[in-house]
Amino acid sequence: MNIQGEFELIEWIRSRRQPNESVLIGPGDDCAFVQTGAQQLLITTDMLMDGVDFQLANVDAKQVGRKCLAVNLSDIAAMAGAPRFAVVSVALPRGPGTGALARDLHLGMEELAAEFSVAIVGGDTNTWDYPLVVSVTLLGEAGPGGVVTRSGARSGDWLFVTGPLGGSIRGHHLSFTPRVREALALAAEVKLKAMIDISDGLAADLNHLLEASGCGAVLDAAAIPKNTTLEAALGDGEDFELLFAVVPEDGRRLLGRPGLWKIGECIDAGMWIEQAGTRRPLPPLGWRHPFERDVTS
Amino acid sequence: MNIQGEFELIEWIRSRRQPNESVLIGPGDDCAFVQTGAQQLLITTDMLMDGVDFQLANVDAKQVGRKCLAVNLSDIAAMAGAPRFAVVSVALPRGPGTGALARDLHLGMEELAAEFSVAIVGGDTNTWDYPLVVSVTLLGEAGPGGVVTRSGARSGDWLFVTGPLGGSIRGHHLSFTPRVREALALAAEVKLKAMIDISDGLAADLNHLLEASGCGAVLDAAAIPKNTTLEAALGDGEDFELLFAVVPEDGRRLLGRPGLWKIGECIDAGMWIEQAGTRRPLPPLGWRHPFERDVTS
Repeated sequence: MNIQGEFELIEWIRSRRQPNESVLIGPGDDCAFVQTGAQQLLITTDMLMDGVDFQLANVDAKQVGRKCLAVNLSDIAAMAGAPRFAVVSVALPRGPGTGALARDLHLGMEELAAEFSVAIVGGDTNTWDYPLVVSVTLLGEAGPGGVVTRSGARSGDWLFVTGPLGGSIRGHHLSFTPRVREALALAAEVKLKAMIDISDGLAADLNHLLEASGCGAVLDAAAIPKNTTLEAALGDGEDFELLFAVVPEDGRRLLGRPGLWKIGECIDAGMWIEQAGTRRPLPPLGWRHPFERDVTS
Repeated sequence: MNIQGEFELIEWIRSRRQPNESVLIGPGDDCAFVQTGAQQLLITTDMLMDGVDFQLANVDAKQVGRKCLAVNLSDIAAMAGAPRFAVVSVALPRGPGTGALARDLHLGMEELAAEFSVAIVGGDTNTWDYPLVVSVTLLGEAGPGGVVTRSGARSGDWLFVTGPLGGSIRGHHLSFTPRVREALALAAEVKLKAMIDISDGLAADLNHLLEASGCGAVLDAAAIPKNTTLEAALGDGEDFELLFAVVPEDGRRLLGRPGLWKIGECIDAGMWIEQAGTRRPLPPLGWRHPFERDVTS
């Protein structure tokens, strides 16, 4: 058997899953969603590594700790959930700065946790002779409208994003505010049919949403909020804004709201972008996971 | 501020905790225990690294995957809980074997998960240029007698272990069966006053249990089940057997049971071992976390 990349690996794992009525949503969305007793629970996890997700030498360790929790908060936001509990595991590089690093990582995480009423309830602390690794698992509860998956968009729906896109590497990927509050407020006002957080890049994550939903979309190049160029807005990863679909009636209520941009509409099939009156195919490019490029066995 | 080791770090984190009525048990026991809606939930997480917790070059990756889940199952067992859901994050070393490694890790985990009715519901797959890191978070529900902490032992209680100790490095640390079923069966039959899984070594973990409980203990050297020497049984880590305390009346019901050994009794204070009629102090030595030795900042 050949596994070429992360998405193939996820597909392979999904194909091996045993039916389990307690697993309401398994691997493949922004969070898992499970039934435990009478309670339903969102679960998400992210592992971040020095040199891949941040450059420890160039940033404050508090920012690193903050980011490690923030990316998980963004996954809970993408399901319109309310975050509750986190556990944090670390592999700290051994040396004279290990204690200070552990402390600063925790301080950065603690501040963001307090802001979003998340309790850090446990973890696992290790040292080794390699770069820093941080793994955070975050649990949440469904928001007022229930959880929002990637798969509910249909032809005719309008597509919105919650902020300007592209160029995140210049600092936004460390300082962004996860859209937890925005998602809960939207879910209380309109029916969110499908949602995803933009971590791989707009084009790539739109493609994920459309594949899960079984429809297509056409974007309006002029309407996409951009930090720099259109190319960066489409392709750069780690914006951590939300991309969501609503029916036009709900969409009209959201038009012109601060912090919301209508960027396109769902159609039957294909992924397209319109610019200066011309419609061209939009390839699902974006930040490609390194795993996709070099796994060859 | 100076953080000298893992236990100091945990103490520091605990000292900074904000009161939260949803956190029934926070950092410092084998699992956290939280209230979410009407449901109570156990949460535990462990990060394992190549060269620290296993030697990937010398073992089957399926065994590594198995161990990464098994150590978490052992933490749920230590609270007498029933495991339910796991998420798995990995940093895979980049190269031609990455796909096969990812597959074998999952296969090893999947088999043990099926054995313990755990659903693997999600994860995060990454690659980088350093050794393998695996982080597993496991959720569970309380068993029939409620959760069992480390802190309920009192003077007069009897102490039992669930298997022979020491020498785990020769293979047991990869192949052990976490004592989930044993813990649930015990909890259904007797009142487990305090329990811990032996991961740091008998002396070290007994010390953790006694410190949490505020009492002492005296062990009977001859009664401790040993794989090799007494020293190894007291000091070696990663046995993943359970150490628990019960009142003498319950203890008498368990005497002579296959798979259970009475190894001592709780007293008011101190940690002692009796051998050939002589009582000597038992130092809380065992596997010391590397972090305890070399964090100096």
